[in-house]
Amino acid sequence: MARRVKTAKKKTMKRKSAASRPLTQGYGSEPGFPISLAMRAGDYVFTSAQGDHEFDPAMVKYDARGLVVSDGNTLPPRTVADETRSALRSLDQALRLAGCTLEDVVDASVWLRDPRDFHEMNKAYGEFFKKNQPTRSIFRIDFMFDCRVEIKVTAYKPQKSPG
Amino acid sequence: MARRVKTAKKKTMKRKSAASRPLTQGYGSEPGFPISLAMRAGDYVFTSAQGDHEFDPAMVKYDARGLVVSDGNTLPPRTVADETRSALRSLDQALRLAGCTLEDVVDASVWLRDPRDFHEMNKAYGEFFKKNQPTRSIFRIDFMFDCRVEIKVTAYKPQKSPG
Amino acid sequence: MARRVKTAKKKTMKRKSAASRPLTQGYGSEPGFPISLAMRAGDYVFTSAQGDHEFDPAMVKYDARGLVVSDGNTLPPRTVADETRSALRSLDQALRLAGCTLEDVVDASVWLRDPRDFHEMNKAYGEFFKKNQPTRSIFRIDFMFDCRVEIKVTAYKPQKSPG
Repeated sequence: MARRVKTAKKKTMKRKSAASRPLTQGYGSEPGFPISLAMRAGDYVFTSAQGDHEFDPAMVKYDARGLVVSDGNTLPPRTVADETRSALRSLDQALRLAGCTLEDVVDASVWLRDPRDFHEMNKAYGEFFKKNQPTRSIFRIDFMFDCRVEIKVTAYKPQKSPG
Repeated sequence: MARRVKTAKKKTMKRKSAASRPLTQGYGSEPGFPISLAMRAGDYVFTSAQGDHEFDPAMVKYDARGLVVSDGNTLPPRTVADETRSALRSLDQALRLAGCTLEDVVDASVWLRDPRDFHEMNKAYGEFFKKNQPTRSIFRIDFMFDCRVEIKVTAYKPQKSPG
Repeated sequence: MARRVKTAKKKTMKRKSAASRPLTQGYGSEPGFPISLAMRAGDYVFTSAQGDHEFDPAMVKYDARGLVVSDGNTLPPRTVADETRSALRSLDQALRLAGCTLEDVVDASVWLRDPRDFHEMNKAYGEFFKKNQPTRSIFRIDFMFDCRVEIKVTAYKPQKSPG
């Protein structure tokens, strides 16, 4: 969903219960998007999908079918491996806002614009997950943004108990 | 997955353990679909994807590629904003069966048939999530049903402790 | 993501905390893929998406758009119902590595290559989920592999408490 993480606003903690453990809290934001970049809910942290793209609503160009041809971004040419690493680094940044890292990821979803990018993405992805590897799904899909790969993860990081 | 929520049958609670807290329970059903509309599992509530559509298996029409052209629904013409609000209201109804509401949503997935609908959907979606905004992914996809947007959410709502 | 489950390597347990309950542990692997077939994280078990396919990177053939025409598999011709049952059986095997079964599934994602396969898939799928039915999403999508249906599930199975 979100592009490169630039700023992260800490939001007000929202308690869901009088109990000490349960809480949800969103972290990070994206101008123009009603989303958090990471959300803690109990022992889990969810992320918004990340891709290596920028997105200027005024600049988006669509083809006749409505597919995004350009989102107005001014990013330099880059490989699928570059994009994969960038997306995972953005996810790591988002997770860190919520008190965890890529090491705590337990499940991942990967989307590619072109199936032929699979092997290059798979190799770059593997650099980040050496042990206790997350489960994963991967599909070809049409993106809303001008990028070749997007990734979304769920992490598990129990909160420190208060006592 | 499911169309407008019309009826909701409370299903038999299924205990997974002798412990008091852990349980899973499905809520709501859809004729012809082996699914629940909402499922509580511990502190989380999952939903089936919802779109503003009807679906009559005998009436579905496909094009040469197998894409759904019409699902036989008799819904009036409506905007993407209308469909977005309808889907979110259906999700809220499903969540309420399981004891929570859209306010407890922590993660969302959104799918659009046409990327050009992004801005209108995004604005209507934002009306429902003003604070502690859920993480989100959004993609263009081909639906099984005759609609322009589908949404699925995960909520976090710890159960009241028995004591 | 993964093809037919053939071997399952038990991986080293990774404790995330000094507490007795919280832990994550990946189960099963797939040659060439940096993934686990199942991952326990606290009370939940995630799976990688499963389809009834094989996948030989050296044999994959793409069409002009980059879509997968053949993944080099030598599986016999089979129906969508066959593929659905095979995917669900593979998921059950993966879940069993992590100490649960299809009976513990609370949420499912289903993807089809051709929407016209919906009814046959839906019927076969229903054979596996008779009561307390999981929530579900279902979409048409382009696969990275040569199959007609893929399924991914989340299960809820609290760990036995140590005491």
